[in-house]
Order: sequence, then structure tokens, then C-alpha cells
Amino acid sequence: MAVTGSVEGRVLPDLAFVGEVAQQLRVDGIRASTKAGSGHPTSSMSAADLIAVLAARHLRYDFADPGNPNNDHLIFSKGHASPLLYALYKACGAITDAELMTYRTFGSRLQGHPTPVIPWVDVATGSLGQGLGVGVGVALAGRYLDKLPFHVWALCGDSEITEGSIWEALDHASHYRLNNLTAIFDINRLGQRGPTELEWDLDAYRRRVEAFGCRAMVIDGHDLQAVDVALSAAREERDAPVVVIARTIKGKGFSEIENKDGWHGRALPADMAERAIAELGGIRDLRMEVQQPGAGQPAISHDGRPAVTLPAYSKGDKVATRKAYGDTLKALGARPDVVALDGEVSNSTHAEEFKLAYPERFFEMYIAEQQLVASTVGISVRGYVAFGSTFAAFFSRAYDFIRMAGVSEVSIRLSGSHAGCEIGADGPSQMALEDIAAMRAVHSSTVLYPSDAVSTAKLVREMAGTRGITYIRTTRGAYPVIYDNAEEFPVGGAKVLRSSSKDVVALIGAGVTLHNCLAAADQLATEGIDARVIDLYSVKPIDVETLRDASRATDGNLVVVEDHYPQGGIGAAVMEALATDDPPHIEHLAVRGLPRSGSPAELMEAAGIDTAAIVSAARRASGATGGR
Amino acid sequence: MAVTGSVEGRVLPDLAFVGEVAQQLRVDGIRASTKAGSGHPTSSMSAADLIAVLAARHLRYDFADPGNPNNDHLIFSKGHASPLLYALYKACGAITDAELMTYRTFGSRLQGHPTPVIPWVDVATGSLGQGLGVGVGVALAGRYLDKLPFHVWALCGDSEITEGSIWEALDHASHYRLNNLTAIFDINRLGQRGPTELEWDLDAYRRRVEAFGCRAMVIDGHDLQAVDVALSAAREERDAPVVVIARTIKGKGFSEIENKDGWHGRALPADMAERAIAELGGIRDLRMEVQQPGAGQPAISHDGRPAVTLPAYSKGDKVATRKAYGDTLKALGARPDVVALDGEVSNSTHAEEFKLAYPERFFEMYIAEQQLVASTVGISVRGYVAFGSTFAAFFSRAYDFIRMAGVSEVSIRLSGSHAGCEIGADGPSQMALEDIAAMRAVHSSTVLYPSDAVSTAKLVREMAGTRGITYIRTTRGAYPVIYDNAEEFPVGGAKVLRSSSKDVVALIGAGVTLHNCLAAADQLATEGIDARVIDLYSVKPIDVETLRDASRATDGNLVVVEDHYPQGGIGAAVMEALATDDPPHIEHLAVRGLPRSGSPAELMEAAGIDTAAIVSAARRASGATGGR
Repeated sequence: MAVTGSVEGRVLPDLAFVGEVAQQLRVDGIRASTKAGSGHPTSSMSAADLIAVLAARHLRYDFADPGNPNNDHLIFSKGHASPLLYALYKACGAITDAELMTYRTFGSRLQGHPTPVIPWVDVATGSLGQGLGVGVGVALAGRYLDKLPFHVWALCGDSEITEGSIWEALDHASHYRLNNLTAIFDINRLGQRGPTELEWDLDAYRRRVEAFGCRAMVIDGHDLQAVDVALSAAREERDAPVVVIARTIKGKGFSEIENKDGWHGRALPADMAERAIAELGGIRDLRMEVQQPGAGQPAISHDGRPAVTLPAYSKGDKVATRKAYGDTLKALGARPDVVALDGEVSNSTHAEEFKLAYPERFFEMYIAEQQLVASTVGISVRGYVAFGSTFAAFFSRAYDFIRMAGVSEVSIRLSGSHAGCEIGADGPSQMALEDIAAMRAVHSSTVLYPSDAVSTAKLVREMAGTRGITYIRTTRGAYPVIYDNAEEFPVGGAKVLRSSSKDVVALIGAGVTLHNCLAAADQLATEGIDARVIDLYSVKPIDVETLRDASRATDGNLVVVEDHYPQGGIGAAVMEALATDDPPHIEHLAVRGLPRSGSPAELMEAAGIDTAAIVSAARRASGATGGR
Repeated sequence: MAVTGSVEGRVLPDLAFVGEVAQQLRVDGIRASTKAGSGHPTSSMSAADLIAVLAARHLRYDFADPGNPNNDHLIFSKGHASPLLYALYKACGAITDAELMTYRTFGSRLQGHPTPVIPWVDVATGSLGQGLGVGVGVALAGRYLDKLPFHVWALCGDSEITEGSIWEALDHASHYRLNNLTAIFDINRLGQRGPTELEWDLDAYRRRVEAFGCRAMVIDGHDLQAVDVALSAAREERDAPVVVIARTIKGKGFSEIENKDGWHGRALPADMAERAIAELGGIRDLRMEVQQPGAGQPAISHDGRPAVTLPAYSKGDKVATRKAYGDTLKALGARPDVVALDGEVSNSTHAEEFKLAYPERFFEMYIAEQQLVASTVGISVRGYVAFGSTFAAFFSRAYDFIRMAGVSEVSIRLSGSHAGCEIGADGPSQMALEDIAAMRAVHSSTVLYPSDAVSTAKLVREMAGTRGITYIRTTRGAYPVIYDNAEEFPVGGAKVLRSSSKDVVALIGAGVTLHNCLAAADQLATEGIDARVIDLYSVKPIDVETLRDASRATDGNLVVVEDHYPQGGIGAAVMEALATDDPPHIEHLAVRGLPRSGSPAELMEAAGIDTAAIVSAARRASGATGGR
């Protein structure tokens, strides 16, 4: 069938040509994975027609200018279909066949699952159910921030549709009327170890998609004209996100494996590959020219930084660091490229201040932390400085998204409030007691834990300019401001608050325990014990020099106290920093046991992280009770 | 309206009485939270009619015998409605009014959010969107394992319905035809910081619920008769789970706050509380008798342990620890109380072996790790020994569920395969590089990381008898069996594989790096450097004695090497264990930087955790290169 179309005076490839390209994509996916000895060719073959039609006749993308703000976005939520994606890059002339054949080899940018080391990839995928959510974030930016008409296309496998995150994504996409987003569901019926739950019950998918407020288009994913019509309609849709529900065949094009179980994630052995390529019509070397994006400028400029006036606080005033986060976020809102998101708790996290001041740059994510992080990532992909906030404990709901953001090496800012047992009566479900460990172990993360409002303000400003996954941990209760407004707090620094040449022990805390350390130092002074006090506001990266100095000055007697479980947190961070040379003795105070409801004071005492516990530990560390 | 019913010859309380009880529940929720000065009374008031009707006329539960297998299960997925739950306990005679008034105080079992320190609570809730999923697990057990007719009732708030996990739960509930599960959606329209997404669009909820294969019943949640009819129909439903979608009013019963924004999570000040109680008809002291459960025995006995024959392996054979997990799980399947679940990757995790041998005790959870863990928890609530498996990296998707399982202090077994960069060409999205840090920091967790098939088999058997959150990390590749089948591997132990009185350095590894340590020790021996080798298969709890001995014997020269990021993992575990007394010098080898695709050998070399890197580190540590 020869069907042509014309867009802006340019003749699009007809579907006969597109069909040939689709076969080439299949052939090349097989060649690459067979050469690598691993990969997911059958998962790639089912989507080849969809992607060929999309790229040939609908996608608007300039491979020579991946940073063009008008580019469409193509996200392979089914990241394991990387053979298809890379074969597409070759067909579009973006990479050579020689590079395609480096698939999955050490040093190649064509990895097993796509990552942004490839310039045309927004975010790393491969953890199913995430790409669509990030696409929602990109589409939010496109519609509400950039106000550019680019389209976001997300290719999803059917196995990943059971991820709850897919439904958070579609729910938010419809709530925010993201008509600039099209999800393409590649319904090939077969998962990794057998049939999917719904198999080819396309109507079941349709009912779910429609119930979630999206427009569904059910098609045969191998009928090129049907695909073409659907994708045209998808871009023209005005009111809602579109989900193209495409019935496909896993391994389509090679009769020996079509629709057969047992071929997920298996590269074809060489002899089978040869037969497959023959059946697919042989190796081709077609190239297609993808339509160029339109010309437009984002409505918000990323250049030009207006002056930001940070909030100022008075020493001695009691201000919760979560409040200071809110004040500072609002101050940062003077920058037009700063965006905030929150998960239904903005009156607790104080993101509400920003929301009230800059409603057009605030996105409510409701109780859906996976989508909260995914949207933060997607908006950051479009160059915005995006801050996402919720209770620190609830970021654990999005830990796989945070992990993958690290793999993507994107820059996002996360604020987790209500840290530790300090929160009091709400009890352990609301307490973050493992977040420092979890966040330190994320690739490219920065972990900040300020003790007062001034340092919070400075660090939140630093976050805006720090790359990677930046996480700040804030406290529910209000504690005294202890720093001058003029004080600076570089990431990777620490503050020595008490120091003398006679220090016999160093007390190291952060957040609420820093205040306990100060009180403990006061008490120890009355006993003739000089204690250094260090505010370790930057847990990662950590100020090794200050720690080393303290260790030398005190003959290796440190007390580290954290409102966090004993594993992997501030104690571990200090130990890791000083492990190689002269590791100090460390009395490590942390929350041992499961906290309960109670007042902050009762809970910190029960946890052994209050002032009295620090005093006792300091006496032990300094040998005041008769030595170790 | 006086409506009576009779079940098994007993006259149920009529709805007029039930209405009075509902008012009492409101009054008592207000009294308790006002006394505590915190809590969520308005969220409790909206559901009081639903709960009163449920408890008075439908719930079958013996408060004097919480372990009765025939008991219904009542789960407050909206855990913040604890005032309502505790008021119900009083109305059922399970607690006194005096205890109710201890709400949220230090030492009271009536915490801000319910936990199983209360005997009638299955799991801790308070992290929204989790209770329903756990209820699915309990219902799976009831229908497929116990084969008892108890009913699971899960009360959900409307804010939590945006959690993707709710849709994983409903999807699985319908897929498994859990007609013994009823979710009650308390649609009170107001979230924490404003209206919910769907407000009172009950039809939108209905369409979603029905699209997910559940039977929806839309009612006025304050019409007692309508509630009563719906709950009767719910228990009688034969084919599908039921969702009662109840339109309710937040703060129902006190006109000053009914349906008003701004009252979420706020206890009423004393004067308002007084007016509220007056409007609600004053303090009452009604008691109701909840129907007793039926009499029946679970189809599967938890007593009597048939002999389990562990798989045996031959020294030198190369066997992947993930394969040994599968072999051992299957062997454990001889115990009728052992159950397995997996997330669509059972041919990779080798849970498939169990599935094929014991299909009636295996539950496929598809790509939905939150529900995988929730189901594992729910099945464990019913006393089964449940093992859940997926790729270690993907357990990060369920980290909040794992965290809350720790808060619940339930016992579950998790196996995470494909650990570290060792997996090779699939790349970083599939690699767990932060899981040891994350899992160590979970309350009541055990973290195991065996190096060979024999130790894996022994440890998997240990997991079956270990309480808490037990996590085993397995490796993709096949490595030599190094232990005799007769060797034992106690949790909290370690193995010293090479040792002499002349050791100048100790090499500590686990999993794949243990093999690298052995090879390094061999090479160092040729250089005249005696190296102790320790297999740290139990990362938590850790064998402090063995580590201390090694530290003393080598004058504090340790090399710790892990296929994991540098933060919070095995290095930190060793450092934490030895921090207080004579902390050793530690050369810490870990995956620094983001891995890519490649072969296992290439990736371990690039990561600096291969044999050559260990040899270099050992030379440094032992001063062989000229000292520190």
C-alpha cells in the first residue's frame, strides 16, 4: 500500500517504505543481540512496526541537535527493547552500523538498557514502569512551563503495565490534561516467564485506560496504516493523554519464534539468526529522515538569574528546618526556572509557601511518591531546577525511581521532612530512620542535614546549583537558630562550633542531634571535659579534613550521634571517611530498636540520642569513667 | 429505623443501636485525640458509620483469641484513622476507656498509627496505600492456602487511592478472584492540604474499580442501611473482590468542621471538642458484641515439620547462588507451610523450581514489586513461611513496604538475585548496588550474602526459621562450590577460609568477591604475603569476634571488598562492628562510579573489585609497598 502524506511541504515516506524500515529494525536488532550474545530481540520485534511508523511519519526530532527545546521526546519505558532503539538510531543516520554492532560491549555507549550517555536518551530505563512516569514529567514541562508543542512518546511493554507506577502516571497525565503525551502499549501477550495477566484482552486494557481519563486507541500493532492513523490522531488530541493499545506479536517476523513462550531476553543463536534474517528479507541499509522539530522558544528562560534574597533568621529564634526549606524554596522562586512538586503534604513540608507564591510552577502530585519523583526527573530533563518534597519516610516509596535517577545522572532536588524519631506522637510509620543510608548509596547523591534555619537556607540554595541527586533531610520540630545569616555552608563542609586545644572528645551530630551535642558540651564543660562540637550538615560529600583534625586533636575519641538507625547513616559516613588511615574510636549513638509514639524528648531519650546519652558517651570516649 | 438480622440464631444489633455506636466512635475519637493533642479525628469521623455497621453486623472476630485462624481480618489501610480503630476496640470491649485515653502517649500500645503491638492488628499501617495490598496477601492465604472462609476488610481513605500500589492490589485481587476481600473506600473528598483529585466523583472511582475487575458498590457512607446491605452483599460475592465506594463527609457529625478544608490531622482544641461531643449526643458507654468466627481448621498445618533434604553440591562445580536458592526453596517446599512468590522473573531467580513442584503454593505477582512484598507480608500474617523473590535491584521498588514490614515486626523472607556489577551486559538498571545499605537499615532485618551453593542452601534453610525481615543476595554467575555439604552456616557467623599465625592482612569478601579474595590470597602467597580470607556471608548480624580476631592477628590491616557501592554496605558493616575498640585500618574496595554494560570480568576490573585490585590493596594494607 502506498500512502503518502505531506507535512509542511515535505513528502513523508510511504508505508511501503516504512514497512521495509520496520523489517530492517528487526534484522538489525537480531544482528546486534546475536553478536552480543545477549539482549531482548523478541521484545524489540513486536514493536518494530510501531516505532518505524512513529519515526518515519510522526516524530519531530533533530538528531544533530538533541538539546533543541522543540524536539519531541521518545522514551523507551520498555528499556529492554534497546536493540530496537539502537537499530532506529542507525536507520535515522544517528549512528553507524559499526557502532550498532558494539551493542552491550564494554565501552560502548549502546548498553543493554539505554542511558543518557547516548545524547538522544532522556533518562535511563530498564526498571519497568518508570519511563512513562518520567514522560509525564517531560509533558508537564512542555505544556505548563515551556509552553512548546513538542510531543512525548512513551513505548511501554505489556508486562510493565502491572506496575502501579504506570497508573500513577496515567492518572496524573489525565488530571493535568497532558494531550502532548502518547503512551504506546506494545501488547505482545508474553512476559518473561509466560503469558501476561491480561494477554490479548485489549478491551480490558481499554477500559482501564479510559477509566483513568485517557483516550484509548485500540489497533493492530502490525497494521501500518492503523498505526499511522492512530499516531496522527494522538498528536491531534486536544483534551487528554492518548494510549495506543497495540496488539502485537512477540518475535514478529520470524515464524520459528513468533508468539512462542520461552524467547524473552534470549539472543538468537547464529544459525537461527541467519534464518530469521532471511525470513525478514535480508539485511538492508535504508535510511530515513526524521521530521525536524518546529521553531519556538521556551516560555521560561533558563538564562539570566535574578537575584535571590534568602530568608534571614534571628539567632535564638526557634524555627523548624522544614519551615526554612519552605521559606527558601519560595525565595528561590524568584528564578523563573525553579519548579516545585509535592505529594499532598505541602502544608507539612512547607512547599506550600512556593505554591501560593508561584502556583504556575508548582505541581501537586497527591499521594503518589513514585510519580512525584518521576515528574521531578522529567521536569529536570527539560532543564528546570525542580524540587520535590514529601516526608522523608515516604521517599522510600520511590526508591527505585531515585536509584534510576542516579543511573540517569540527572539533577533533581529532593526534600524529605519529618526525619527521625524526633517527630514524636505520629509514630514509626511516619519516621525516616533509614533514609540517610539509602540516599548515601545512590549514585551521584548529595545528602544534606542542616541543624538550623540559616544553614538550611544556604544549603537549599546550594542544592539549586548542585548536580546529581541532592537530598536534604529536615526536622519537624523547631530548634534555635545558631548561625549568623552571613555564614556560608559549602556542600562537603562542616562547622566546628566548639573547639579548643584541650579537647579530649569530639561530638559529631547533625539536625536535631547537633543541638543535643551543644547541650552535652555545655554540661561536659562543667565537669571539666572539653568537647569539640561538629555540625556535620553535609553527610555526603563529607568533610574529611575536619573529621581528621578532630580525630587527631582528641586522640581518636569521637562520639557520633544520629536520629537514624545504626546502619549506614552518619556513623557509617564518618567511619568510611576515616577508615584507611588512623581510624578513631567511635562511640556511636543511634536509634537502636523500634521507636513508638511519644513526645520528641521521650523518644530521643528512649533511643539513646539525647543530651544525657551524649554526655555518657563522651565520658566513656574520653576515658573519664576509668578508661575503655 | 429498626432493622434486625439474625445470623446463626443470634440477633444482631439493630441499626438504631449501630447509629448510636457510630456516634460513640466519633465522640471517643475526638476525646482521645484532643487529650493527646494530636491525631486525625476528622479522618476518623467520616468512616465511623462504615466501621460501626461493619463491626456490629458483619465482622466475625474473637477479640479474646486473636490467633484464631477463622477470624476475619480488619485492616485500616488509612492508618491515621487510629482514633476510630481504638474507639472501636473500646466499643467491642477489648480495651477500657482509660486505656483509650492513653492514645499517643509514650508507652501506650495505642500509637499514632496502629502497629501489631496491639494483638488485633495484623500489620503496621500509616504509610498510605499499603494496608490494602497486605490484605490481598491475607486473602490469598485464606482462599488458596487455609481454605477458610474468613473475610478480609480493608478500610482505605480516598487520598491513598492515588497510590499505584492500590491498583496493584486491586489488579491482583481480581486476577486471583479474591471474593473474600472487601475494600471500603471512605471517599470524604478532602485530603491533607485540600481536595482530592476526584473529590466526590464516585462514578470515576466506580469505573476504575470495575475496569480493574472488581465489583463496585457505590453508596452513601452515612446511610446505615445502605452500608449494611452493601457489606452483606460483599461477603456473599462469589466471583470477585468487592470495593464499597462510600461517599462520606470528613468531620461528619460536628457541623463546625464537616466538609471543611484545613482540619486534616488536627485534634480539636478543648472547647471545640466540648461542642462537638455535645452535638454528637454526648459521651456514651455502649458495648457491642462482635460475632464470633466460624470453626474450621486451616487446610495446611503449621505443625509437624517433615524432613527437608537440602540439595547437595560437589566441590569445584560451578553453580550460581541464585540456582542454589531455587534448589533449596524447592527442597523446603516439602514443608506444607512454605510458600513462594515471585515478580515475573522466576526463571531468573529460580523460584520457578518451586513453582513447578508446588504450584498450589506459588503465587505469581507479575511486574508489581510492591504487591510482591505486600502479598509476602500478608501470607506471613497467616503464619506461613513465605519467600518472595525478584532481582535485588527491583526490591528497591518495594522499599517502603519493606520498611513498614520492619515496623510491623513480621517475618518475611526475600531473595534478591542479580547482585552487583557482576551481572554483566544488562547494565546498571538491573544491578543492585545499594541494596545492602538499604536492607541493613531496615528494622529487624537479617542480610545474607553467600558465596557458593552449599552456603546458600544452608542459609536459605536458616531463613525459614529466622524472625524478622530476612534478605538474601544472590549472584547471577556460576562460581565454584567451596564448602563441604556438611558445613553449617549459622546466621551471624562467618567462615575463615585461609588463616595462619603469620597473616599480615585479612581479605574480607562475600558473594562473588569472596572468590576474588581467594584468588588474591593465592597470588599474595607467591609473594610471601600471608593473607587471611574471611567469607562474610552474614552481613547482618555480623560476626564481630571473627573480625576482631582478624584485626588483632594482622595488626589492624583489613581489606574489605564488595560488589556494591561504597556507602553503607559490607565495608560500613565491618567498620560499625569494630568502631568502638581498636578500629582497624581498612582498605575498602567497592564499586566507585557508575557501572556500564560489559562482561562480569571487565566490569569488576573497572570497578576495582577484582583479584588484581585486592592484591594491590593487600600490598598497601600490609605495608609491602613501603608502608603507610
